[in-house]
Amino acid sequence: MKRPALDAEMELFRDSARKFFQTEIRPHSERWREAGIVDREAFLKAGEAGYLCMWIDEKYGGLGLKDFRYEQILIEENALHGDSGYFITLHSRLVAPYLEHFGTEEQKQRFYPGIMSGEKIMAIAMTEPDAGSDLAGMKARAEDKGDHWLLNGSKTYISNGILADLVIVAAKTHPENPHGVTLFLVERGMEGFERGRMLKKMGMKSQDTAELFFRDVKVPKANVLGQPHAGFYQLMKGLAEERLIAAAGNVSGARAALEVTKEFVRNRKVFGKPLSKMQNTRFKLAALDAELDIAQVYVDRCVEQHNLGKLDPTDAARAKLYTSELQGRMVDEGVQLHGGAGYMDEYPICRMYQDERIHRILAGTSEIMKEIIARSTLD
Amino acid sequence: MKRPALDAEMELFRDSARKFFQTEIRPHSERWREAGIVDREAFLKAGEAGYLCMWIDEKYGGLGLKDFRYEQILIEENALHGDSGYFITLHSRLVAPYLEHFGTEEQKQRFYPGIMSGEKIMAIAMTEPDAGSDLAGMKARAEDKGDHWLLNGSKTYISNGILADLVIVAAKTHPENPHGVTLFLVERGMEGFERGRMLKKMGMKSQDTAELFFRDVKVPKANVLGQPHAGFYQLMKGLAEERLIAAAGNVSGARAALEVTKEFVRNRKVFGKPLSKMQNTRFKLAALDAELDIAQVYVDRCVEQHNLGKLDPTDAARAKLYTSELQGRMVDEGVQLHGGAGYMDEYPICRMYQDERIHRILAGTSEIMKEIIARSTLD
Amino acid sequence: MKRPALDAEMELFRDSARKFFQTEIRPHSERWREAGIVDREAFLKAGEAGYLCMWIDEKYGGLGLKDFRYEQILIEENALHGDSGYFITLHSRLVAPYLEHFGTEEQKQRFYPGIMSGEKIMAIAMTEPDAGSDLAGMKARAEDKGDHWLLNGSKTYISNGILADLVIVAAKTHPENPHGVTLFLVERGMEGFERGRMLKKMGMKSQDTAELFFRDVKVPKANVLGQPHAGFYQLMKGLAEERLIAAAGNVSGARAALEVTKEFVRNRKVFGKPLSKMQNTRFKLAALDAELDIAQVYVDRCVEQHNLGKLDPTDAARAKLYTSELQGRMVDEGVQLHGGAGYMDEYPICRMYQDERIHRILAGTSEIMKEIIARSTLD
Amino acid sequence: MKRPALDAEMELFRDSARKFFQTEIRPHSERWREAGIVDREAFLKAGEAGYLCMWIDEKYGGLGLKDFRYEQILIEENALHGDSGYFITLHSRLVAPYLEHFGTEEQKQRFYPGIMSGEKIMAIAMTEPDAGSDLAGMKARAEDKGDHWLLNGSKTYISNGILADLVIVAAKTHPENPHGVTLFLVERGMEGFERGRMLKKMGMKSQDTAELFFRDVKVPKANVLGQPHAGFYQLMKGLAEERLIAAAGNVSGARAALEVTKEFVRNRKVFGKPLSKMQNTRFKLAALDAELDIAQVYVDRCVEQHNLGKLDPTDAARAKLYTSELQGRMVDEGVQLHGGAGYMDEYPICRMYQDERIHRILAGTSEIMKEIIARSTLD
Repeated sequence: MKRPALDAEMELFRDSARKFFQTEIRPHSERWREAGIVDREAFLKAGEAGYLCMWIDEKYGGLGLKDFRYEQILIEENALHGDSGYFITLHSRLVAPYLEHFGTEEQKQRFYPGIMSGEKIMAIAMTEPDAGSDLAGMKARAEDKGDHWLLNGSKTYISNGILADLVIVAAKTHPENPHGVTLFLVERGMEGFERGRMLKKMGMKSQDTAELFFRDVKVPKANVLGQPHAGFYQLMKGLAEERLIAAAGNVSGARAALEVTKEFVRNRKVFGKPLSKMQNTRFKLAALDAELDIAQVYVDRCVEQHNLGKLDPTDAARAKLYTSELQGRMVDEGVQLHGGAGYMDEYPICRMYQDERIHRILAGTSEIMKEIIARSTLD
Repeated sequence: MKRPALDAEMELFRDSARKFFQTEIRPHSERWREAGIVDREAFLKAGEAGYLCMWIDEKYGGLGLKDFRYEQILIEENALHGDSGYFITLHSRLVAPYLEHFGTEEQKQRFYPGIMSGEKIMAIAMTEPDAGSDLAGMKARAEDKGDHWLLNGSKTYISNGILADLVIVAAKTHPENPHGVTLFLVERGMEGFERGRMLKKMGMKSQDTAELFFRDVKVPKANVLGQPHAGFYQLMKGLAEERLIAAAGNVSGARAALEVTKEFVRNRKVFGKPLSKMQNTRFKLAALDAELDIAQVYVDRCVEQHNLGKLDPTDAARAKLYTSELQGRMVDEGVQLHGGAGYMDEYPICRMYQDERIHRILAGTSEIMKEIIARSTLD
Repeated sequence: MKRPALDAEMELFRDSARKFFQTEIRPHSERWREAGIVDREAFLKAGEAGYLCMWIDEKYGGLGLKDFRYEQILIEENALHGDSGYFITLHSRLVAPYLEHFGTEEQKQRFYPGIMSGEKIMAIAMTEPDAGSDLAGMKARAEDKGDHWLLNGSKTYISNGILADLVIVAAKTHPENPHGVTLFLVERGMEGFERGRMLKKMGMKSQDTAELFFRDVKVPKANVLGQPHAGFYQLMKGLAEERLIAAAGNVSGARAALEVTKEFVRNRKVFGKPLSKMQNTRFKLAALDAELDIAQVYVDRCVEQHNLGKLDPTDAARAKLYTSELQGRMVDEGVQLHGGAGYMDEYPICRMYQDERIHRILAGTSEIMKEIIARSTLD
Repeated sequence: MKRPALDAEMELFRDSARKFFQTEIRPHSERWREAGIVDREAFLKAGEAGYLCMWIDEKYGGLGLKDFRYEQILIEENALHGDSGYFITLHSRLVAPYLEHFGTEEQKQRFYPGIMSGEKIMAIAMTEPDAGSDLAGMKARAEDKGDHWLLNGSKTYISNGILADLVIVAAKTHPENPHGVTLFLVERGMEGFERGRMLKKMGMKSQDTAELFFRDVKVPKANVLGQPHAGFYQLMKGLAEERLIAAAGNVSGARAALEVTKEFVRNRKVFGKPLSKMQNTRFKLAALDAELDIAQVYVDRCVEQHNLGKLDPTDAARAKLYTSELQGRMVDEGVQLHGGAGYMDEYPICRMYQDERIHRILAGTSEIMKEIIARSTLD
């Protein structure tokens, strides 16, 4: 399906974004993968290009681009021409918006400049060892000490965990109320805030994932984000957008996998004819192509709704569920059609397969998406 | 996903269509299923209501409603409130348009009135015993005898085969050219045109499917449809719309199956709680709900494109493929969640399961859809 | 995989069984399907041939054939050459064994002769309207009236429900204990025992399924089967064998579907070559063939274990689960490869598709099988 | 299903094998994975323990253990307690048997001692860049130069490629006959035989996979293996056993994945109860458990047949196809049930997922297995 036409300005934006990823990101990809982390410069360059937090109001020096399609373009171009572990969207669109929604004017003025320039990289720390994403099991605690809170606990699986300069940390602050969670803005250099080792993962090799430790960290009251004890509800607010971001990424990732696979099967000969001429290849890829096209149309519709401020959280869950499952099927078939080459690191499909596996888990597992959908349609 | 709003006129149209199917069609369903055929009156009533060939120009006495959404509304309301074997869409939107596209002015004037009133029911006869839908294997032949053609052959699996008064019959007319096929307008009562037995089918019980026999039928030249020997290309023309119709029906059929299943699992108790509260039920139905919503958005986009005259045939194939496979998964899970009840004829899901199975075959099998998609995306 | 050799006697048994089904059963199949019920004579003929309750001891005039492979041969030959609705195994091996396990000497002497001759056809009545197979929800009640029990209630989905002369009926007899269920031998002609209409089903057309009503039926104490209030545990006892029977039937049914499909695709030409030469056909059928062979080996191993009295109920559940799901996939692909023909009643695959759907539900749904397996392997 | 009892000697063998893998292999696993290669000592230790080429006749100093179950025990214990990249079976049972089947007495005497002791590690080199496993596309060539052959070409994806001391290399030797292939025994140190870089792979991290280059290598006639030009047929001979080995490994790999997943879901709590108590977890793992048990029984039956010299190659293909697909489903669900942990290298399921992906490709892809089965059952 032909996608709805973008206006000229957006097409231009896509072109320059593509160039950015092709020249500033992809060439470093191999080295970053070896290092397990991207260069800080990669964030600074994105900042220079104006790609970080494009939604920030002009009064703070931002671009004031509220249209989600700009972000979608970055997501798509990164998937096709950048590096899967270069998580600027996490910074720009998953974490920074908490400041927008719940931050004080003072916090915005303090943090926005560094966030836009890429000097201050953001992360969010919710998950804990042994508790998974189940907030009720959270053990991190903060105590009100008058002019500051005393934060203790540890978090794990934190994306951008090593790079992050500004981390939103969720901790329990109300012993009787299991939902009594507060969000804190913890900054690099605060005493007692330490990073653990970088966690080795299946894929997303250039993405730094880490454990974070908080031992008697004094968090000034000025760094409380939003209302004390209201963190649980604050965390809910961003979920629909987070899922839409995931969906947009999944569909682009699946598209990238389809493209490299099509290329491969057209060139690889078996028994004297291209693999692309075998009926099995054709049928498998055709079915995936259909699913992909259908998924893209849905994601684009969600984006439209989101731009109108009307994205139904259930639709976001549907988009996230379906696209992640589809991406899983796509990379699996992609590897299979590559044969032995699909297992070799030098072929992109190999990395895509390893990258993909997190997407049915991240930003709410498929199981959680199903429960969300069931609640709104079955109960 | 909330569907794009219909305008007031269309909402009104949907309301009256719903009432029509609920009062004029559904009450006869049981009897028609026993008989294996719907009453001719059902077509006459649709004619009275103005539901047949709504696209016919006002100059022929038609409504001139080109917007496909009117047809889609009929398809949806029939699926939800009518009878699966009541094939007015076949008549109105699959067969009659051949007259519009290829008929002479004289033919339009001769046939349109009866077609709109429901007095002349249409069918199309392509498939032959042992040849399936492979046109190259077609054995029906017509010979040019000066003022008429002499038609011989037999056709099978003809929907509306018993009811039909006006049948478009494809026959080979050019012995050297395997694509040299001509379409003929064969009318009830022409000598040598006979119907075989009504074929018993898995489902679609009220739908009359039959073999047709043509023994030395003299077809006047005035009943040739379009250019002689050009039938093969004429048959291609309607395919995208045919697939869109199928897709719209599939998604409605799947919706109907989801609805009755949700109703059932909410009411059926197991081990003291509703089946709808079991995680397996929730996850299965949530995943299907997501697929269904995604499919609906795609079909609606195809309809938009079709209204603009821009429906890409590959998109139509994608829609047909995906929706038919989804409907298959939906009715299968629907039966399973009904348990023993799902196997009993008195539960709608039982009939839906039997009806559904043709949709992955009819209007181009899933395998053909895949080949179409592969040709346009892989080659 | 070559199956383990049968001894000469068993091969002979298979030959004569095949002839029996081919000559005494299959020729009536069409008529029985129309009638919705098989002839009583079909049971009498099986009795004459010695096929009913082959396991009954010689002292009661039985054959004393304890080896389950004899029953398996009947199941297989019936699937391949008989009629899917001819339920002698239900009579012989699912219901009659309750008499063997729990019956008194007097009951055996009274009932065995008629059961072996086919004069007394058996059924078992557990399921109730609205309660499904959930015994806790059972509403049928019997009260101890001194020399008899007074039975009230209704049962549904009873196979052989119209034909049955001797029905094992489960009813609650102990108001405080939800497991306090007693089994009663209810005989044709007892006052207050009535049959409802024959239930129309998706498939298994010749199989009579009915509702049974019990209104103040006086059941003499001599017709209590086993210990009062112990019915729940008695019902458990036969489950492993019941599932093995189901598994043996499923694998045979799947085999029959594979055979007719292979036959069809070898003969049907598309684009000038047999459908069996298309890669999609080959891959789909090869994968199913592999699964079928693997399933057969497992079922045969279960039969070996069962003959040793060592069949693990979890293995029986595994066999039932896997074979029923496989049969589902097999008939579905079978229909698809038949194209339009697959939807026509005159092709066996069409009926197989409709027959099959009950097997993932009957004798414990797939969901119940999974729970059984989870209990023994995960908890 | 309880597996057939092993005799006391075999049980003893299993115990000491388990200890061997637990103490000599697993502790080095992490280091080997980092290095991309196992220590040569690991082969020497296996040699000392008598685990290499156990089938070699006593007259050559071997153990003369022809029973395949000994090898199966090593495969299983390695999967559960060893290291997935420790490929002694490739050496012992895939490559060395070529010497047994086609080697001269002189070759056996020359090579067997080093092969058994682990001093001479074997590999086989068939696959070439751009040709995949399609022998017809092979470009490596050897020319008869009187007392030696002159070998030129390159091979890729060679397992044990870096470690190997003795490589069986396939090259075309008959320009007119595309099947005119000869096998050569190429030894470490022969001039012109060079190794390329170690190939980075998705998983099997400790397994050295490499390209091999042959530039004017003079292979003495005494190192021709079997008949010149007969290599194609010689390569066929071992395929059934190779597939059985793969199947035995797949089923063990799947078992290992099921075990770690069961352990995880029993311990991980969600919303206050173990994940193992959620219906979705139970149903998913139960279905996989059933498949696994069924697959194991089939593999064990194949082993029985193989020991009798009667393993049907189609059955080996069935076993390989089914077990590899099952292992794929198992590790995928295993990762999913682990949630975020499943993506972390420190959890075994993460590595299993990456290891697994080669098994649907190695030793004949699933597509090739399907074609093999289709040829023997459909044509």
